[in-house]
Amino acid sequence: MEQNLPDTVALLRRTPAVLNALLRDLPEAWTLRQEGEGTWSPFDVVGHLIYCERTDWMVRAKLVLQCGETRPFDRFDRWGHVRESQGKSLGQLLDEFARVRAENLDELRALNLRPEDLARRGLHPALGSVTLSELLAAWTVHDLTHLHQIARVMAHQYREAVGGWGKFLGVLNCAGHGAP
Amino acid sequence: MEQNLPDTVALLRRTPAVLNALLRDLPEAWTLRQEGEGTWSPFDVVGHLIYCERTDWMVRAKLVLQCGETRPFDRFDRWGHVRESQGKSLGQLLDEFARVRAENLDELRALNLRPEDLARRGLHPALGSVTLSELLAAWTVHDLTHLHQIARVMAHQYREAVGGWGKFLGVLNCAGHGAP
Repeated sequence: MEQNLPDTVALLRRTPAVLNALLRDLPEAWTLRQEGEGTWSPFDVVGHLIYCERTDWMVRAKLVLQCGETRPFDRFDRWGHVRESQGKSLGQLLDEFARVRAENLDELRALNLRPEDLARRGLHPALGSVTLSELLAAWTVHDLTHLHQIARVMAHQYREAVGGWGKFLGVLNCAGHGAP
Repeated sequence: MEQNLPDTVALLRRTPAVLNALLRDLPEAWTLRQEGEGTWSPFDVVGHLIYCERTDWMVRAKLVLQCGETRPFDRFDRWGHVRESQGKSLGQLLDEFARVRAENLDELRALNLRPEDLARRGLHPALGSVTLSELLAAWTVHDLTHLHQIARVMAHQYREAVGGWGKFLGVLNCAGHGAP
């Protein structure tokens, strides 16, 4: 099953508001704690999402349309957000994410993609040949991966507090820790 | 680590707005599809959350305070929401969830719980002796379990559409399917 562009955009458009409703002005016990050394807090995840908007999805989409498979995508820096998030508040990051996401969706709409564009191929440095349709679907599922991650990181803070209920609560038994 | 009541309430208060931002008026391709037979769509999950507000968390909290361990909690019906959700729109369910959650949090505040109340014990039909503090923490993590589940169910709809990216996207590799 292919992605459906209106469904994809409908979801991508919502993510900033979802993260805003969940995280803005929430106690730092939820937003700044992570799952252990080398893992991310919800604050880190929002920084990563901004960094992806700037360097990943739309940059790569335009490269597919301009260069096809003749030039591979630049490699993505998983820790690229750290320096850019430093000294900022979570509220600032949420504002920034909403702004860059809206700009990218404006740019996506302006491309007026036709079905034949969605079938065009680019070159991923690790995955090899990929289609623009797959890239747009991955952008969407990447949002969901990080929403899923934020829920898991927050739940982790109450891992002991729930006592015996832990075995009934799926989020405490999640193994879906992918490289984002 | 125990739950912290203000942190718990801060999170419980947000969940209706989070689900509203994510799901209201989203295409049905995202909200009505599930992960396979006998699993839940995001629509079903919102129905379940309403049913829990009506029959589970605050009902049990009051039972702890009134009866302690002398009377076990009623068993929870995992499919209890199905009949009550029938014929309703997702928008109606989201409104209903916001209303019952707000009522329950008003009631929780009115209890003016002191630390010694949080240590009081009740009797769970499967888990045995549990504290009120554990129950309130589990209420919170239950919200996160279902946010985590909704993200996973939605991502599942694009499982094939993402092509090779699937292995990088943690939400597609989640094993955190608990009994809710």
